[in-house]
Amino acid sequence: MMKLTCNKTNLVNGVNIVLKAVSNRTTLPILECILLQADANKFKLVSNDLELGIESQVDATIVQPGSVALEARIFSEIVKKLPDSIVEISVDENNMTTIRCENSQFKIAGQPGVEFPQLPEVEKNNQFSLAQVVLKDMIRQTIFSVAVEETRQILTGELLEIKNGSLHIVSVDGYRVSFRKTSLSIENEQIEVVVPGKTLNEISKILSSEEEDMVSLYFTDKHVLFDLGNSIVVSRLLEGEFLKYEQIFSGDYETKIKVDRRELLMSIERAALISRENKKNPVKMEITQNQLVITSNTELGTAYEQLLIHAEGKDLIIAFNPRYLIDALRAIEDEKIQIQFTSSLSPCIIQPIEGDEYKYLILPIRLNA
Amino acid sequence: MMKLTCNKTNLVNGVNIVLKAVSNRTTLPILECILLQADANKFKLVSNDLELGIESQVDATIVQPGSVALEARIFSEIVKKLPDSIVEISVDENNMTTIRCENSQFKIAGQPGVEFPQLPEVEKNNQFSLAQVVLKDMIRQTIFSVAVEETRQILTGELLEIKNGSLHIVSVDGYRVSFRKTSLSIENEQIEVVVPGKTLNEISKILSSEEEDMVSLYFTDKHVLFDLGNSIVVSRLLEGEFLKYEQIFSGDYETKIKVDRRELLMSIERAALISRENKKNPVKMEITQNQLVITSNTELGTAYEQLLIHAEGKDLIIAFNPRYLIDALRAIEDEKIQIQFTSSLSPCIIQPIEGDEYKYLILPIRLNA
Repeated sequence: MMKLTCNKTNLVNGVNIVLKAVSNRTTLPILECILLQADANKFKLVSNDLELGIESQVDATIVQPGSVALEARIFSEIVKKLPDSIVEISVDENNMTTIRCENSQFKIAGQPGVEFPQLPEVEKNNQFSLAQVVLKDMIRQTIFSVAVEETRQILTGELLEIKNGSLHIVSVDGYRVSFRKTSLSIENEQIEVVVPGKTLNEISKILSSEEEDMVSLYFTDKHVLFDLGNSIVVSRLLEGEFLKYEQIFSGDYETKIKVDRRELLMSIERAALISRENKKNPVKMEITQNQLVITSNTELGTAYEQLLIHAEGKDLIIAFNPRYLIDALRAIEDEKIQIQFTSSLSPCIIQPIEGDEYKYLILPIRLNA
Repeated sequence: MMKLTCNKTNLVNGVNIVLKAVSNRTTLPILECILLQADANKFKLVSNDLELGIESQVDATIVQPGSVALEARIFSEIVKKLPDSIVEISVDENNMTTIRCENSQFKIAGQPGVEFPQLPEVEKNNQFSLAQVVLKDMIRQTIFSVAVEETRQILTGELLEIKNGSLHIVSVDGYRVSFRKTSLSIENEQIEVVVPGKTLNEISKILSSEEEDMVSLYFTDKHVLFDLGNSIVVSRLLEGEFLKYEQIFSGDYETKIKVDRRELLMSIERAALISRENKKNPVKMEITQNQLVITSNTELGTAYEQLLIHAEGKDLIIAFNPRYLIDALRAIEDEKIQIQFTSSLSPCIIQPIEGDEYKYLILPIRLNA
């Protein structure tokens, strides 16, 4: 039994948020549902795929508290197509749910709300806050190098590390490391957790782009909770030791270039076209005094790109998978960047001309002689 | 051998047009190419999948006339990624093609232009013209009911019929007929051809939405040619007898309603939600004096929608595949429409309150008692 009224637009917003954690696994049908739960003065929608759970609060006038679990696909489709008006939802003692809005009325069979798995409890201590848009950007700028194979499961997540008053987000696959850093207004906290890539992907879709919206993070040994104000997201953490990434980012270099990021990106994207679909042939970079020549050479043809750059140190010939350079260069927003190299067999490091907000390390491909 | 320069934006526009007729069939690799052909003072791009052929003219400065066939995928990708500047294309005696633009240079292997199949010749008589946007709309408003199965191949095309100074476009599948009509400024012409649905789909993507752009159509027994000014499209015609659609559109009715198109569309879309994905359960319509009740009833639940309408004649209960009603109601732009019915086993006809610009006939689904 439950009865409430709410505004259609608010309801749709809440549904769109919780849809991100609805399961596709038909082995446990209740996980394909959205839980509607009305307490005396709070109406919330809940989804939970047992890895990730989302709870979203919707303004409502509650006539009778109660709960019901409704199949997410049909509930969300109905709600989205309703007129922009007041929606009345009522549930009878058999979980038959009636949704009324103007001259439309739907009846769909629900399941008892009590059968829906609760979200894990996360105590609200061990906390820090930052702007949602900053966290959203940090995820976007690192998520692409999360490992996809399950061989080292820990690397399918991203390291969230709080250290010396900063938050670091780091991802590592077998060929590259992506690192982003931002200052926090806290001190002395020391946190190191690994959050599944899937969670971060989904949460970055929910995070607002408004400067003033904040998100607070809370941790336990097993879970992280993101509190977005009207919504909370709870995710399981990955267990295990993350890669000791810091020692990989060496400060030494033999060659250092400063280059226009967009020009470099466009040149590499063009050079990468000279390869069969779905196959990434290496692009070769030749650095001489103030010139960078990028070439690609396959059975389809050749590409030749020439850029003016500022170079320091030794001349160098080195080759990369263009995909990895493109991912990093697209993630960066700076107009100019610097890249440092040690040798044609050692990784390059892409970083800002000034500051240390990001670092991208990419392994080269060995060139045939 | 060939050499020319042209503007990147113009080249991309031309490539995007001819891409619509590039073949995916790898049995005849030359059809996966775009032909570049430079005469003394005209540069054109040509594609041809043997059913459909497109020729698009690009402004260019021709240094040396000639031709080459280049693999469409790689050529189009390269051209799209070039800087917005002047592009130089030169072809040597081995069909090796060099594409230069600012500091980028590509070399790709081409094939001799003479090996590319010519478009069919269509003599430019037997012609009529209309605004591109009108033809584009007429295609969009009828193409959805072209038959998809190949059992009656003629119905996989649309009838283009010129009669009494009007152009009619008609499509028919097993369950419905879609009809659009527009006046032409010609008389006494009598044309009846059936153009493949695929052609019309592709050409509607190329047709401009600007009021003043005109398209001229020319016919032979086997082909139709659409002249868009800078581009021409030539398509094979389908052979055979099209359905005699006119006798199906009876003027008789027992029940006639006038209804707000958008309200009806939204109600049917909502009622159609109460069905499993990819399966369209019927929606039932109950017409009484000034009320239309739409219901849907499946194992998932029930939907009930109530609309105020203007009804004439007998009360009626009738059921339809909601997909068919939705397609027609989305294609129409009028605010109000009328629908006439004869019985619960006979088709309905959706048409304007005034005029005869469109008619949509839809067969009902027999209701179980």
